[in-house]
Amino acid sequence: MTKTRLYLYDTTLRDGQQTQGVQFSTAEKVQIAQALDALGLDYIEGGWPGANPTDSAFFESAPKTSACMTAFGMTKRSGRSAENDDVLAAVMNAGTPAVCLVGKSHDYHVTHALGISLEENTENVRASVAHIVAQGREALFDAEHFFDGYKDNPEYAVEVCRAALDAGARWVVLCDTNGGALPAEVGRIVSEVIAAGLPGDRLGIHTHNDTENAVACSLAAVDAGARQIQGTLNGLGERCGNANLTALIPTLMMKEPYASRYEVNVKPEALAGLTRISRMLDDILNRVPSKQSAYVGASAFAHKAGLHASAILKDPTTYEHIDPASVGNARIIPMSNQAGQSNLRKRLTDAGLAVEAGDPALGRILERIKLREAEGYSYDTAQASFELLARDELGQLPEFFEVKRYKVTVERRKNKYNKMVSLSEAVVVVKVDGEKKLSVSESLDESGSDRGPVNALAKALAKDLGQYSQILSDMRLVDFKVRITQGGTEAVTRVIIDSEDGQGRRWSTVGVSANIIDASFEALLDAIQWKLVNDCAPQSAAAE
Amino acid sequence: MTKTRLYLYDTTLRDGQQTQGVQFSTAEKVQIAQALDALGLDYIEGGWPGANPTDSAFFESAPKTSACMTAFGMTKRSGRSAENDDVLAAVMNAGTPAVCLVGKSHDYHVTHALGISLEENTENVRASVAHIVAQGREALFDAEHFFDGYKDNPEYAVEVCRAALDAGARWVVLCDTNGGALPAEVGRIVSEVIAAGLPGDRLGIHTHNDTENAVACSLAAVDAGARQIQGTLNGLGERCGNANLTALIPTLMMKEPYASRYEVNVKPEALAGLTRISRMLDDILNRVPSKQSAYVGASAFAHKAGLHASAILKDPTTYEHIDPASVGNARIIPMSNQAGQSNLRKRLTDAGLAVEAGDPALGRILERIKLREAEGYSYDTAQASFELLARDELGQLPEFFEVKRYKVTVERRKNKYNKMVSLSEAVVVVKVDGEKKLSVSESLDESGSDRGPVNALAKALAKDLGQYSQILSDMRLVDFKVRITQGGTEAVTRVIIDSEDGQGRRWSTVGVSANIIDASFEALLDAIQWKLVNDCAPQSAAAE
Repeated sequence: MTKTRLYLYDTTLRDGQQTQGVQFSTAEKVQIAQALDALGLDYIEGGWPGANPTDSAFFESAPKTSACMTAFGMTKRSGRSAENDDVLAAVMNAGTPAVCLVGKSHDYHVTHALGISLEENTENVRASVAHIVAQGREALFDAEHFFDGYKDNPEYAVEVCRAALDAGARWVVLCDTNGGALPAEVGRIVSEVIAAGLPGDRLGIHTHNDTENAVACSLAAVDAGARQIQGTLNGLGERCGNANLTALIPTLMMKEPYASRYEVNVKPEALAGLTRISRMLDDILNRVPSKQSAYVGASAFAHKAGLHASAILKDPTTYEHIDPASVGNARIIPMSNQAGQSNLRKRLTDAGLAVEAGDPALGRILERIKLREAEGYSYDTAQASFELLARDELGQLPEFFEVKRYKVTVERRKNKYNKMVSLSEAVVVVKVDGEKKLSVSESLDESGSDRGPVNALAKALAKDLGQYSQILSDMRLVDFKVRITQGGTEAVTRVIIDSEDGQGRRWSTVGVSANIIDASFEALLDAIQWKLVNDCAPQSAAAE
Repeated sequence: MTKTRLYLYDTTLRDGQQTQGVQFSTAEKVQIAQALDALGLDYIEGGWPGANPTDSAFFESAPKTSACMTAFGMTKRSGRSAENDDVLAAVMNAGTPAVCLVGKSHDYHVTHALGISLEENTENVRASVAHIVAQGREALFDAEHFFDGYKDNPEYAVEVCRAALDAGARWVVLCDTNGGALPAEVGRIVSEVIAAGLPGDRLGIHTHNDTENAVACSLAAVDAGARQIQGTLNGLGERCGNANLTALIPTLMMKEPYASRYEVNVKPEALAGLTRISRMLDDILNRVPSKQSAYVGASAFAHKAGLHASAILKDPTTYEHIDPASVGNARIIPMSNQAGQSNLRKRLTDAGLAVEAGDPALGRILERIKLREAEGYSYDTAQASFELLARDELGQLPEFFEVKRYKVTVERRKNKYNKMVSLSEAVVVVKVDGEKKLSVSESLDESGSDRGPVNALAKALAKDLGQYSQILSDMRLVDFKVRITQGGTEAVTRVIIDSEDGQGRRWSTVGVSANIIDASFEALLDAIQWKLVNDCAPQSAAAE
């Protein structure tokens, strides 16, 4: 049986940027576009050139993609020709192979928001699409508020879409702009408009998640015959977000009846990178990834219920609807249940720490993790701190040095040019190989800019550690994440530090305290200890 | 037209507790049960008595509810009678008016996971349900893996359900245990089993969100004739979560065709408390509420796109599918570089700053916001800092005082009991009313615990500001959020501080710097300025 081709249209860089609190830089847009292209998306909507400086800059430096790069804009305004509309001109000037214009298809919006006649609006749509086509570009028309419009005035909603198609639009995209349409309704209306003569293989669907049905509405539209799906990575987007491509793509590729009936341009090898791409986007946004996300969430294949966990050990298909590896995700059996100890042993073995089943240290490690987590620590990502904790319980953690005290000063005052400047200075006192050492560093980088107190502290701490300084010389702090969280009854600060070294290793450590400097210092100490544990010859460590 | 009654069954306290990282205390379970009861749920599944000490304790101290309190368990095991199964006895002993037992309906699970014959499993279900009914309780049967079972062996899946109904179960709940079923499939199968003789008004639906379709699958089951819906608040639950009642309830009550066809026990006044209940649950879990949640998310009615925001000002129904107040939520028009001037004017008017349309200050304010956002600032939430910025451009920001310099010291060393302790000290030098003032504070709270350098700085800054100190005396810092973000090409720290005063006002301010202390200080300064702007008599401000 020949499969029907479905086209995937990503609008992470445009509608996704309408998410409250999201503002991509040009460099971030380039990075996301490259990931979308590698995944196999058919279209990438890069933004609205002219409406936003970052969007204009993105199109100037847009990466070469196999995906069809698309500029977004709106249909020409009344009272001028498409050729003379400067807003439309800015969109065309981005030079993309495809252009997608949004226009009204709901009569109420035409007469009340635009204040023009229905005929004039139809003509604006027609002329705008014709203009794109005349310039040799592929034209797409986003029919705004299509479903509400169809419910109020089906003839007019269809007429606007037909005008766009007649003018040469490759796709007319039926948009549920306010997110209020429900799946059964979307399915029924798409069926009706196809019956009314709009060709399904030129119809797209664009939904929002205001009732938590954006994915289902997209599937209902496909069931009814639409052949293009618009959505975003991780369901970013205006208000509650757009249809989540991160959930839709695996469903279309792996779940029936979609897998047998349809094909998309995403290859199974690319699908196996989906979890990584989803996390990369969260990294860019500095968001904590949602653990419960379909397919890619850290909990998506976590089996906490005791009954489930033990059945999974017999046969994973009993409680997993797909293989987690197919989307680059992994099964988790949390340590909070009976499977905890075998799970812990697996994690320790992965870290090169072989422990026999039944070793009482396993119970002690689990207990200590539980206590620390109650204080605000988190070992999900801070693998290096987890290893140090385990080594300590296993009696395999040498004391390389001891911090006796430290002091950090942050000062802000006028400099000799009468400008307010900041400077931090850190003093750290350590005892190493029986010798007391005082080190001091300040927070200025090579360009003379203040990098803050944690930077000063990191430099002072690593500055003179005797025999160990050489080992630490290729280590650097590459990321620093701060969260306010609950530790017991008080709000505390959790700091996660990512470090890197010359061997290309990267490791994460955690510190927690009501005092952000203390929390940072603790994470720094762990980072240094982990490096020493891994790079010191065993005999020197044993000599401690 | 008579409406058909739908029954809502909440399993937040049982399946919701299977969420990775979630473990309710007994007191928290009581608090959640009371909120569910006030909302108008029909059933509250309180947990599995005997399987978990917290669950057993909850049933011992369960609050009196109008909702039918339900204990969860599993059908009796083979080789013993229902009366002699100690696991089942523990469930019965909780003494709830209703008991819900899960059992197998998928033949593969019966023969492979349980290792018993299909007949024996059916008999276990029948006998267990009969036992509950004989004890005078209402019986519910959760048919585990029903949809997968039906696809493999429809006769057997239906036979198990029929056995439960024949034995007197009030409800048979069709469970999509691994979350793999899709909406169209759920709709088709529910229609088929009703056609096969299972009565729809005794069928429930229990779905999971593994493909992001749990809500849509529940609606599809209702469309097909099921009359009970199981779900959780905020979509908590095993793996990707259960069907989200926080999204389903408003849809059933306010969206067509559901609102006209069906009725639930939730009253409109209770629905208006939905956002509060959702946030309360996040508070209990110490989670940051998801901004993009359908209906109740902080962004659910946030209109960031310039086009949308200006239309909303004319007529909210243009871009809102329901009235935000009906679920206790509110409209937000955030500031961002995509916002238009009309959006800005509305936000200024809300803040008591009337500006004429076309005032050139509007363009200057937008420009300055754009520049600041490029540096890493964010004004989506920091409304107070936004107002100060606007006032500055409008010439309406008095200079109450000037900070000449500050210095903060963080020190960690051994105290006299040889224990490592931290202490921060801050010195702030300000010029107020022509007079230079030096203030010093330390970071210890009333109990002698170190609260860190930002706390010391806040105290020193507010300590002596001449005539203004009195005004600031009822102000306190209530939240502190830190994010590492991009400012130009460098990583910078963004700090958002929430403050509160004796009048119950709460306001948010932002600071950005590579130095976390500087960023915090800037946000603190804005917090104080905003309070002074709002509380100083106009003449005293004008006198500056």
